Amino acid sequence: MLNSVTDDFRQHLRSLLPDAAFRELTDAYLKEPRGRYAAGDGFLVAPDSVDQVSRIMRACSNGRVSVVPYGGGTGLVGGQIASKNVTPVILSLERMTRIRDISPIDNVAVVEAGAILQSVQEAAQDADRLFPLSLASEGSARIGGLLATNAGGVNTLRYGNARDLCLGLEVVLADGTIVNGLSRLRKNNTGYDLRHLMIGAEGSLGIITAASLKLFPQPAGSATAMMVVKDPQAALGLLALAGSRLGGQISAFELISRVGLDFLAEVGPDIKTPFAETPEWMVLLDVGTFAGVDPETALEDLFVKASEDGMVSDGVIAQSEGQRAEFWAIRESIPEANRRIGSVSSHDISVPIARIPDFIDEAPGRLAMIGQFRINCFGHMGDGNLHYNVFPMPGKSREDHQSDRAEIKRVVHDLTHEMEGSISAEHGIGRLKVDDLITYGDPGKLAAMRLIKDALDPLGILNPGAVLAQPDH
Amino acid sequence: MLNSVTDDFRQHLRSLLPDAAFRELTDAYLKEPRGRYAAGDGFLVAPDSVDQVSRIMRACSNGRVSVVPYGGGTGLVGGQIASKNVTPVILSLERMTRIRDISPIDNVAVVEAGAILQSVQEAAQDADRLFPLSLASEGSARIGGLLATNAGGVNTLRYGNARDLCLGLEVVLADGTIVNGLSRLRKNNTGYDLRHLMIGAEGSLGIITAASLKLFPQPAGSATAMMVVKDPQAALGLLALAGSRLGGQISAFELISRVGLDFLAEVGPDIKTPFAETPEWMVLLDVGTFAGVDPETALEDLFVKASEDGMVSDGVIAQSEGQRAEFWAIRESIPEANRRIGSVSSHDISVPIARIPDFIDEAPGRLAMIGQFRINCFGHMGDGNLHYNVFPMPGKSREDHQSDRAEIKRVVHDLTHEMEGSISAEHGIGRLKVDDLITYGDPGKLAAMRLIKDALDPLGILNPGAVLAQPDH
Repeated sequence: MLNSVTDDFRQHLRSLLPDAAFRELTDAYLKEPRGRYAAGDGFLVAPDSVDQVSRIMRACSNGRVSVVPYGGGTGLVGGQIASKNVTPVILSLERMTRIRDISPIDNVAVVEAGAILQSVQEAAQDADRLFPLSLASEGSARIGGLLATNAGGVNTLRYGNARDLCLGLEVVLADGTIVNGLSRLRKNNTGYDLRHLMIGAEGSLGIITAASLKLFPQPAGSATAMMVVKDPQAALGLLALAGSRLGGQISAFELISRVGLDFLAEVGPDIKTPFAETPEWMVLLDVGTFAGVDPETALEDLFVKASEDGMVSDGVIAQSEGQRAEFWAIRESIPEANRRIGSVSSHDISVPIARIPDFIDEAPGRLAMIGQFRINCFGHMGDGNLHYNVFPMPGKSREDHQSDRAEIKRVVHDLTHEMEGSISAEHGIGRLKVDDLITYGDPGKLAAMRLIKDALDPLGILNPGAVLAQPDH
Repeated sequence: MLNSVTDDFRQHLRSLLPDAAFRELTDAYLKEPRGRYAAGDGFLVAPDSVDQVSRIMRACSNGRVSVVPYGGGTGLVGGQIASKNVTPVILSLERMTRIRDISPIDNVAVVEAGAILQSVQEAAQDADRLFPLSLASEGSARIGGLLATNAGGVNTLRYGNARDLCLGLEVVLADGTIVNGLSRLRKNNTGYDLRHLMIGAEGSLGIITAASLKLFPQPAGSATAMMVVKDPQAALGLLALAGSRLGGQISAFELISRVGLDFLAEVGPDIKTPFAETPEWMVLLDVGTFAGVDPETALEDLFVKASEDGMVSDGVIAQSEGQRAEFWAIRESIPEANRRIGSVSSHDISVPIARIPDFIDEAPGRLAMIGQFRINCFGHMGDGNLHYNVFPMPGKSREDHQSDRAEIKRVVHDLTHEMEGSISAEHGIGRLKVDDLITYGDPGKLAAMRLIKDALDPLGILNPGAVLAQPDH
């Protein structure tokens, strides 16, 4: 049984930490961005060092008090919001924002968990390097949370997920033990990889306090194109062609459907494609090239070859930085248009890349058994990651389909599972998908996860109810 | 307390598995390639399916019998060789060699743990894809062992270690539980990452039975060069220059010292560099380029720029496949020359890349306090990974320095540790470095490792004595 924070416990923490560690609890710490999760109460503590984090964890462990780690608060699955029936310590990393070191020769940045992604990107750029993790919330998401949820984003096709960008971690375990694993090494085979165990564990196995991150040379040139494809199958062909011609120079390959573009026209933001007619399907392509490769020429050559092969029917290569930004604004505005329309149910799924066309063919028929919907399917096709969102027909609202939501989710997740896909491609499990993980997860994996959780957090104080259901004890 | 295999237990296993699973135990299963480890006895079992592996593990778990997993037997740290005082089950994956699937669209191969690396490379090539893991023992090393030890090799600079090439694993846990994690997905955030926990655990947490592996487009062109550099500092400058100009197209950057070339001249194999004078330091560079980049021109341009900057004094670009093979033969023959000379002590270390010149400057002075030695320092500079091997002077032998060995190792490892390096960059811990891991490992990490080991293998039957010391119980 976990204990709520009591007055005595508050007093005890105050005696362990400097005054600056205590901040006013605002609503932001208790509600997630979409308002779907809200906590009852919490005791906000913002330590300034790994040693202070260790002291907090030791105290919480001794007092059997639960701890909810808090980064930028941008998570979409409720991982940062405690359940209503306890008052946990909300451990915010917001004061641990230092960029401890940037080494362009090692291609490594060592940063604290509270550093905001954008500031890490900027620090890398100042050292003539690239930190490629990039996503819509980069102005507020913090490194610790990005690693704890193994964030994805738009550059994963080339550079991988957050996991792939991390060389080492400094972590505090449930009992306050500090694991110093801030390695800068590219090769290090000395025992179990705790780093990867903590990444994606969503704060349920330990508190990430700092990370060493991989940096990359900045591409010599870059360019962006939009290409119209007949259907997802043609997009898949284009992806393979681009891969064989440009290899690791492709940094984004985003699929966009007509529905998303119609949504933009219907509710804004007011952004249009460069095409005279709204295409049924289009692809947004980004390349970052090496010395000797002209990025525009590379995209042009790709377009010519793809046209010859009948994969693309129209295409535009951005002619300026301004136009590149416009192209990307289309992609980045679709989530906002989605919010304005109001989805009945949205899904962050992935399937093996080769199955994407099958999935997009098959799902609408199954959903039609439930009712009439508009489907906005878009996302990181190069990674097999689709945001498959189901909307009401014009004139209907999200509320009209309240009773359909569970069934829609089941249909989308069942099909994903049949196609050996994932019910959470990049957002994680949090509290939202704990039951889905039980339904669709491999039983052997779940058993092993429970053993690991119980071993590293025997009292169950770390982010209880996230990833794994809280046992009744 | 673990039990040795008894006649009754043999009988029991024979009742659970088909006859074909039982093979004659030869010396190969009891001795590692360099003859430094030898087991007393063992009971060889070669299952043909994950289900059979599960049955074996369940039986061993019930009987508290230890299990040593066996792949290609090429490991260099004794991880595949049981200690003398027990008779374990030697669980060989040699019959699970199927390549279950190759999907060029997904860029995925699903292979069984017993598949030999070279056969996986060839299967990928037949599908016009590249599986980039490559190392000297690729003709006999098996995928399961390569993943269990997170093997490195010559292409890690570009493609990462074995860990980075794996999308998912099928694993059998100590109690026989099957974890089916053969994901083909590039993005999948559904719970703890057991895959990365098993990779590098050297069979001490579970038996890898199959893996889904990343494939890559084959480079459009490739080329190889040798460049003479003044010293390791100049090599570091060349590495950074190559990185900024060619980015992810560089697949190998190997540092070779004069000592290694002298060894080749002294004891063979009879292979010479293309340079009139034996250089003090040289670099072997491999590039695999994308469409539109001529690989020879890319290397030429790099050489010209590096010459202007004073980094390189001479260089040759291979003019044929035959010459490329000759260049690589120099690098690949150095370990054989080393064996013929007979090292006093050899070390597989890594340091942050920026520290390599310091390390190479500092170590000889410290070793000179012990005695007079020849040092052959070579390796994967692009990964920060040096094979730092200490040899007797001419006229002396390995045996003459028997009493110096421990001290040499201590000096090299201490310096590595001071420079925040790793005492095992790519070979793993096995049984050879268990004590070193205790000495140099982070105490917090070791504590967490022990908790995980005890949780997943509470009886301690999985590869006992590898990675972590066997507890007395």
